[in-house]
Amino acid sequence: MDSNQAPDIVVGRLPIYLRALTFMGEEGREITSSQELSERLGISSAQIRKDFSHFGEFGKQGTGYEIAYLRDQLKRILQVERMWPVALVGYGDLGHALANYGGFAPKGFEIVAVFDNDPAKIGQQVAGKEVLSIAELATIVRQKKIKVAIMAIPSSAAQQVANMLVDSGIQAILNYAPINISVPHNVRVQDIDPAARLQHMTFYLK
Amino acid sequence: MDSNQAPDIVVGRLPIYLRALTFMGEEGREITSSQELSERLGISSAQIRKDFSHFGEFGKQGTGYEIAYLRDQLKRILQVERMWPVALVGYGDLGHALANYGGFAPKGFEIVAVFDNDPAKIGQQVAGKEVLSIAELATIVRQKKIKVAIMAIPSSAAQQVANMLVDSGIQAILNYAPINISVPHNVRVQDIDPAARLQHMTFYLK
Repeated sequence: MDSNQAPDIVVGRLPIYLRALTFMGEEGREITSSQELSERLGISSAQIRKDFSHFGEFGKQGTGYEIAYLRDQLKRILQVERMWPVALVGYGDLGHALANYGGFAPKGFEIVAVFDNDPAKIGQQVAGKEVLSIAELATIVRQKKIKVAIMAIPSSAAQQVANMLVDSGIQAILNYAPINISVPHNVRVQDIDPAARLQHMTFYLK
Repeated sequence: MDSNQAPDIVVGRLPIYLRALTFMGEEGREITSSQELSERLGISSAQIRKDFSHFGEFGKQGTGYEIAYLRDQLKRILQVERMWPVALVGYGDLGHALANYGGFAPKGFEIVAVFDNDPAKIGQQVAGKEVLSIAELATIVRQKKIKVAIMAIPSSAAQQVANMLVDSGIQAILNYAPINISVPHNVRVQDIDPAARLQHMTFYLK
């Protein structure tokens, strides 16, 4: 089974399944079903079973899924049984919030370096780290073997910083600038644009 | 043509098209094509034409799309030619960043009220607004006819606050808590979970 054949939209749902399973595990639950996941997540149980089938056999007909086992399998598939060091570029209000966010570590990510180009911010301390000059980006990314970066910077700087990240060896970028950045085919980008997500919803409002 | 028949995944791409067209318009451009949009957005030109076809005829074969016209049509379809008042619940680091974010207004959204339950935060000023007690939420939402809310609060409080929002008349919730909230079928929810988006990308890393 070549799991790289799973459609990207299916891959994008795996973290949502993992989130729900982790939550159920913390509730002390041991067994779940595609029906229960369906009710929790608003995804049809047939879709859930089909999504899982891309990656193997995780449950037996009629007995449901063992939560801890399925959770650990999803962690393995998503490669988050390990901790990924992350570079954060941009130490404005959003960068500050991200540097202090407690939600990354339990999911397999640790921001190990924070960069900005503002001399007034360079040298500040945040969550046990020092804000560094963007001029040090390539050196630190290589030294710490960082593959994942978060860009929390204005649109006007986004392409230039993305180029720097790619040149330094970054392979995955979480981009908060509301603009499409161009990267080589071997680099992954996910965009977070809250205004676009609000517009998605206003389509439906009466 | 009943545009409500468009699949939700298509609706979700409209803000991305609108973003690209707005950007091209600001560059002084007048005409574009599905091919150019495809190159900018990494979505196939056939998919783009098919997405648009759910909502009408926006271009002529061989002459491309008039950028300003298509942009204005997308704004109308997404109902963002108007300004939506938005309630923000949660004034931690993330709430602070969102309250000060300049990217909402150009997209049709204005945060008009900020709520928290922490007495130390209530009464603080942010972006010309006062942080109000969550106890005032229902009154303010009704008074200002707010339909859209952003939740920037911990997971532990998310369902309770979501219930309050729904009871107050909110119809669309942008949820930053990394948990699935339950709402009635007539209420829309979009989740923003940066750790899940990072996990989506680590699936592909070598």
